[in-house]
Amino acid sequence: MKFCSTCGHTVSLKTPEQDTIPRYVCDACGVIHYENPKIVVGCVPEHEGKILLCKRAIEPRYGYWTVPAGFMENEETLQEGAARETLEEALAEVEIGEMFAVVDVVRARQVHVMFRARLIGDAYGVGYESLETLLFTEDEIPWDDIAFPSVRFALETWLEDRRLGRTGLLHMTTFRRPRP
Amino acid sequence: MKFCSTCGHTVSLKTPEQDTIPRYVCDACGVIHYENPKIVVGCVPEHEGKILLCKRAIEPRYGYWTVPAGFMENEETLQEGAARETLEEALAEVEIGEMFAVVDVVRARQVHVMFRARLIGDAYGVGYESLETLLFTEDEIPWDDIAFPSVRFALETWLEDRRLGRTGLLHMTTFRRPRP
Repeated sequence: MKFCSTCGHTVSLKTPEQDTIPRYVCDACGVIHYENPKIVVGCVPEHEGKILLCKRAIEPRYGYWTVPAGFMENEETLQEGAARETLEEALAEVEIGEMFAVVDVVRARQVHVMFRARLIGDAYGVGYESLETLLFTEDEIPWDDIAFPSVRFALETWLEDRRLGRTGLLHMTTFRRPRP
Repeated sequence: MKFCSTCGHTVSLKTPEQDTIPRYVCDACGVIHYENPKIVVGCVPEHEGKILLCKRAIEPRYGYWTVPAGFMENEETLQEGAARETLEEALAEVEIGEMFAVVDVVRARQVHVMFRARLIGDAYGVGYESLETLLFTEDEIPWDDIAFPSVRFALETWLEDRRLGRTGLLHMTTFRRPRP
């Protein structure tokens, strides 16, 4: 950030009074521009025991596999965001279930929130952010080509829950390393 | 947003190619400025069966009671944010427990995330964003003067969980109305 989005003047990094963190403050109008972590919302879409994954057609991690997920938008709930991302990336309608994984991706300034989900019907396709989408059995999951640690965490905990017949558990973890 | 924070030129609201939502796009350098929901993180700090609440010294809802909570900052985890807010608002150190409530406050473009917590020691005080802080038994909670619906939801579900001896349950709800 170099300029004030309110008045167009330059900004400087300074710690406002009663604050402890440096913020971009406008040199002219004094508006403080706060920057905060963003929410990435996604789901593990299940259909007849298989999981729907998307091969990314965008950077970062072009060509790697992910569950449907993306930045939560204003005016939507977490569940609506997860369903929207699935529709966009995999052209699939899902019924969103419980939240089961939360990952703090500290270095990326993101919190990833993952839901269980079920395909409604059996239609799916390839959204413009995907190169390919496919239903995988547990044995077929391309572990060496998973896009992000948070996706791996979501898949591993989801599969462990299923193996143990477990629901209702919220898995939380923190990644402080930069993403691969 | 009126000006580009990257180059200082004016921005216009338009829907970028391959997008479905209008964004502020710079008329000169073309940078797209995304706006997304923010995370409010807080906790219900318990001490010897009582709950520590803070009377707000800031708007909105000046003079009303809340649990310690505030905007999550970059470079911290959800748990670290909840502990930091408790230290700032109530000068109390807490051990953060499980996440038990998530509230989509759609109109405010916020997701509120609430944790269980326990005071470490018995020291607490009045931070600069508070007029007063106090430990309340269940019967003493000032229900008519609670600052936000998400705080009410957190307190109600926390108390219900305690009454039923229940842990590990994640309560989720959505508020689409403007805050009172």
